[in-house]
Amino acid sequence: MISPVDQRTWLVSESPFNPFKLHHTETIFTVGNGFMGVRGTFEEGYSGDLATTLAHGIFNHAEGDLVPDIVNLPNPLPVQVLVDGEAFHMTTGKVLGFRRTLDLKRAALTREVLWRTSKGVVVKLTFERFASLTNEHLLVQRVRVRALLGSPQITIRSSVDANVTNLGVQHLADLHTSVSGAEILVTARTNQSNYGIAVCAAHSLSIESAVQSEAERVSYTFALPQENEVGLTKISAIYTTRQGDQPAHMAQEATRAALKKGYETLFAAHCAAWEQYWHTSDVQIEGDELAQRAVRFTTYHVLIAAPRHDERVSIGAKTLSGLGYKGHVFWDTELFMLPMLTVTQPKLARNLLMYRYHNLQGARNKARANGYEGAMFPWESTDTGEETTPQWSHPQPDGTRIRIWTGDNEQHISTDIAYAVLQYWQWTGDDEFFVKHGAEIVLDTAVFWGSRAEYNAERDRYELSMQIGPDEYHENVNNSAFTNSMVRWHLQQALAARNWLLTHHREAGEALLARLNITEERCAKWSDIAAKIYIPRDPETGVLEQFDGFFQLERLDLTHWQPRVTNMDWILGHERAQRTMVIKQADIVMLMALLGDQFGSPEVQQSNWDFYYPIVDHGSSLSPSTHAWVAARLGLLEDAYKLFMYAANIDLEDLKGNVRDGIHAAACGGVWQAVAFGFVGLSLDERGELQIKPNLPPHWRSVTLRAYHRGQLKTIRLTAEN
Amino acid sequence: MISPVDQRTWLVSESPFNPFKLHHTETIFTVGNGFMGVRGTFEEGYSGDLATTLAHGIFNHAEGDLVPDIVNLPNPLPVQVLVDGEAFHMTTGKVLGFRRTLDLKRAALTREVLWRTSKGVVVKLTFERFASLTNEHLLVQRVRVRALLGSPQITIRSSVDANVTNLGVQHLADLHTSVSGAEILVTARTNQSNYGIAVCAAHSLSIESAVQSEAERVSYTFALPQENEVGLTKISAIYTTRQGDQPAHMAQEATRAALKKGYETLFAAHCAAWEQYWHTSDVQIEGDELAQRAVRFTTYHVLIAAPRHDERVSIGAKTLSGLGYKGHVFWDTELFMLPMLTVTQPKLARNLLMYRYHNLQGARNKARANGYEGAMFPWESTDTGEETTPQWSHPQPDGTRIRIWTGDNEQHISTDIAYAVLQYWQWTGDDEFFVKHGAEIVLDTAVFWGSRAEYNAERDRYELSMQIGPDEYHENVNNSAFTNSMVRWHLQQALAARNWLLTHHREAGEALLARLNITEERCAKWSDIAAKIYIPRDPETGVLEQFDGFFQLERLDLTHWQPRVTNMDWILGHERAQRTMVIKQADIVMLMALLGDQFGSPEVQQSNWDFYYPIVDHGSSLSPSTHAWVAARLGLLEDAYKLFMYAANIDLEDLKGNVRDGIHAAACGGVWQAVAFGFVGLSLDERGELQIKPNLPPHWRSVTLRAYHRGQLKTIRLTAEN
Repeated sequence: MISPVDQRTWLVSESPFNPFKLHHTETIFTVGNGFMGVRGTFEEGYSGDLATTLAHGIFNHAEGDLVPDIVNLPNPLPVQVLVDGEAFHMTTGKVLGFRRTLDLKRAALTREVLWRTSKGVVVKLTFERFASLTNEHLLVQRVRVRALLGSPQITIRSSVDANVTNLGVQHLADLHTSVSGAEILVTARTNQSNYGIAVCAAHSLSIESAVQSEAERVSYTFALPQENEVGLTKISAIYTTRQGDQPAHMAQEATRAALKKGYETLFAAHCAAWEQYWHTSDVQIEGDELAQRAVRFTTYHVLIAAPRHDERVSIGAKTLSGLGYKGHVFWDTELFMLPMLTVTQPKLARNLLMYRYHNLQGARNKARANGYEGAMFPWESTDTGEETTPQWSHPQPDGTRIRIWTGDNEQHISTDIAYAVLQYWQWTGDDEFFVKHGAEIVLDTAVFWGSRAEYNAERDRYELSMQIGPDEYHENVNNSAFTNSMVRWHLQQALAARNWLLTHHREAGEALLARLNITEERCAKWSDIAAKIYIPRDPETGVLEQFDGFFQLERLDLTHWQPRVTNMDWILGHERAQRTMVIKQADIVMLMALLGDQFGSPEVQQSNWDFYYPIVDHGSSLSPSTHAWVAARLGLLEDAYKLFMYAANIDLEDLKGNVRDGIHAAACGGVWQAVAFGFVGLSLDERGELQIKPNLPPHWRSVTLRAYHRGQLKTIRLTAEN
Repeated sequence: MISPVDQRTWLVSESPFNPFKLHHTETIFTVGNGFMGVRGTFEEGYSGDLATTLAHGIFNHAEGDLVPDIVNLPNPLPVQVLVDGEAFHMTTGKVLGFRRTLDLKRAALTREVLWRTSKGVVVKLTFERFASLTNEHLLVQRVRVRALLGSPQITIRSSVDANVTNLGVQHLADLHTSVSGAEILVTARTNQSNYGIAVCAAHSLSIESAVQSEAERVSYTFALPQENEVGLTKISAIYTTRQGDQPAHMAQEATRAALKKGYETLFAAHCAAWEQYWHTSDVQIEGDELAQRAVRFTTYHVLIAAPRHDERVSIGAKTLSGLGYKGHVFWDTELFMLPMLTVTQPKLARNLLMYRYHNLQGARNKARANGYEGAMFPWESTDTGEETTPQWSHPQPDGTRIRIWTGDNEQHISTDIAYAVLQYWQWTGDDEFFVKHGAEIVLDTAVFWGSRAEYNAERDRYELSMQIGPDEYHENVNNSAFTNSMVRWHLQQALAARNWLLTHHREAGEALLARLNITEERCAKWSDIAAKIYIPRDPETGVLEQFDGFFQLERLDLTHWQPRVTNMDWILGHERAQRTMVIKQADIVMLMALLGDQFGSPEVQQSNWDFYYPIVDHGSSLSPSTHAWVAARLGLLEDAYKLFMYAANIDLEDLKGNVRDGIHAAACGGVWQAVAFGFVGLSLDERGELQIKPNLPPHWRSVTLRAYHRGQLKTIRLTAEN
């Protein structure tokens, strides 16, 4: 049995059922395995529920839509239980008790319901599901019915719901459902991208009972004597043409093989695989069970979204837990989710970086289209690697459309990706990856910046105009301190990487440099840019000016604007927000997080914090964890802990009010960073050695985490005493 | 400023506003001071809200009702804020942020709302209230409006709502409202009990602005420039003819005097008084902030309900936080709330015991009416001290009425009261109270039992037929092991008390014994009953049989009946539940709690626990805390902690689904007992000396609590190490 402390720190429970949080709980109770994500929708279905089944890489650009969507696949969940002919539903009869529990340790979702029919029969229904980590094509379900009072006749019906859309947008064509024996097969293809899709569901009942195959479902009917229990195992396999030419055949083979193994065997293997995940990724906090559970919850959601066996897909901003941002991949992956994986699951981190490597062509296309050289990564990316940020919003209520500038001007994404590559390389020492793949990303994005930087001859400096930094309230600004600083850092790193290649892997290095046309002249220009790029700053205080003219904006005292959940951008209106010194998220503070002590002296860091912390709106879910990280490093533990707990509960408590659209994956990864890089103070020093500068919240008794460093798994344990 | 750890352990917050929990939050955000209780209803009013203002002792038996009600008094809360003519309401305009916080340390409720009008003006509204602990007739409110965006015209309207009922039942007559200047006076009387009531509200605005006196309200209208703030202080006094003949005059005098002092002065005095309360009643838990906060929350609700200056009132089962159980007083007070007060606030405990003393006549009346001698306390008690348990329920949907037997047969209440008196005496050493008042309660209830016990000549034993023990699923049973055991204990204590009186206070003792007609013969009979009263028990295991025939009932395995929130009594139906071995609450386990090691050997205690724990339904909110206490004593720490946390969160998380009716006060007191008597293992040994047998939950770093022992305040601090 699970121990009480494990119950409190590994289980996320809902009890009683709260119909008003239907969409919130659907999101947080998502199960997944790096291939698929299945929202926590109920088997019997509810009005307005958002059943969503997603698989990495299956995008489709429907006619009339602005950009591609990740495709909502046929829903394998539906199971209906009838008790003496009365269909179980939590709005009929009487629910005598309800508990839904996500077991983070085992990555399994269980719902227990005590239900009394209108005629007075009482049954206990237990619904279990997990997305197998050992066979990532399998969603495994079990539905158990126990007669507690009365001996009813039970009918169980199971189907695969092919009548699915993305909130009304139809992506599937050629839908076909067939039923044979206890097996249901649904096939389809996406109507633009032409991915073939197959979902096959097979069933097995724990007692002898004839299966009835109907048009689109299978059913069993049997008598259930009081105090007896019957279980239905339903195993669904999802395959697409991304896995092979015959997804239907593969799905059938997989379900049949799995059915032979049975629920318990599959679950045991799944749990063993999760034990491996947690062995390296679990952060253990003693003295703060709420923080402990929240950190496990956020870690879980990154892990279930991280592709295990596929290096041509990446994690969207909302993971596979909802349709928000249409499954698109942003900088969230590289700067928020990847660090946790780099340190604790380097193989998964490598997959994600390889996604960018394989999509260099899209980045090169974007650079060409914009008149630049090298690789300019898209702000939003899908299966094609092309820029998929919409240029315009859908029409507003007043008929106008809003121009979306991020795809044009939020160019720091290219440097963010280079940062992630270099971070991975430093932590893992994976030279093979770097030489073959990583260096090309770092260097070709440097080529882009070399072609992008604007020389201001009058002032003998380089500048970048029309940028959007992390603070998206201020668009198309000149000389974003964040972007310019990161570009300087990027070019320095690119030059160092070039030297390293030529020193340690001369042949491969020279070939790569030749292929990317990285000449001596180009390198000289990089040096010049790095030396002369303009970074606006108050010379007296050392406070960076977020961009040209920022210090002249109207300053709003946010002190009295609490408690605020609505974004200031919305309250003030976008036009006015642009003219106001209120920022969406960590921008200069993000720079402090990324650069660490390279940012400046402790005094300069404190001055920048003091200036920017009071004006940040946290309008992005990415912001609080970054602030927590930096506050911890600066020793501001009260702020750090408050921000950390806010970040850790964004999804659990739906603090932004939009969890229905999916998990805030960057916040999840950010929570790990706040603990590891902030409170624990983990970093690599100049020689690449592990370094710890702890700043623990005073009530934490201990923190234990694991980190791979150059292939060695290290255990770092800090206690309150030391 | 309040420290972060204090924020997490002293503040109970709601954010965002959850309209579906309106009644739950109204209850948990009740403020009070031992004289009045005011539910956390919003100043601007919402459809279906349950504004409730209660004062101890004001009951009324409306025509057509079965029993008296505590009377819902005129509501002093209403304040309406209009911004440019638009009335603030959280369903109009847009709420940009909402946070409601009950500060347990300061016993004050604050609501902060950022609100945007439909025209785009943004204001911050802050609503504060507290029920003054230094002048218990005062409810003090402050409403602050700050213009954040725009410079609106503000109108503030304030009234006292006299249009109040108890869920439709009208208790008030002769209602009269008058307004003079900034003062509103509402007077009324109860239509059966004829209590006179006055509520006077006075106002003061932080800026110069003419007050407009209208028919039933006062209002102010003024311009509010951006970034300015204006505050309205509203002070309401409640007096009744229980305080004097001229409640209206007293209320006016009180509000005028208070208005002169002003909000800050009143609040500072209030906070200082609460500091005194917490100095002795606060239990400090390190290593478990959730438990820490929950214990403070439950302690708060007992403290705000405990009468400070009135010994003719007591605390109803739902305190003054809701209309559940009509304000009636049950055994909940003596066995669940009183122990905490006896140990940490003995003056308050004495007030509650004096309520029973002053109502001995009602208990004597009940004994006579039932053909017994002495004092037989009512199962439900109000201002009169007479039995006020209804004999019948209101008609059910099918027209039938249910006979309610508790008023007839739940006779253990008399012994529960005697237990509380003796416990108070032992802890405080307050001989004066005991000689003058307490002994009379203990002895005259013993007289009742002496007349009540039935002699079975055939078996030469005493029996008690037609009883209801704590487990109310089984009514009118014979030889309730709980009741019979407690009667034996009671008679033994009465004999000892008699001897003590004759030894130490001969004159007073003889007078009392003579007055109560406690003769040598009567005492001999008590001895005989105590020696021969029948207590059903399995002779092999030592397991008590809850009552005659209990072991023969149908045994239901409750293992599979989880998660269950509905009571088994409801699920099975009352008739079947009577025939089933499922119990409502701690019954034998309650006996174990009360008798401690007198119950039996450790093995016998464990056997009884093992038998009864699996069949308890916790259908009463009194049950989990008692189980937690006993489990802790038995060293069953995992169960103990789980049960403790359940008890501690019954109201905070509305685990029983009925917090709308009021706080579960017994559960609140029970939580303190679980910590003090269970985990800390505090008790008095045979010589009356303090004894500690700790059984702390393993993750608790320390527990600190204070206890008055014979007038000395002791600090008990346990750490995980010792």
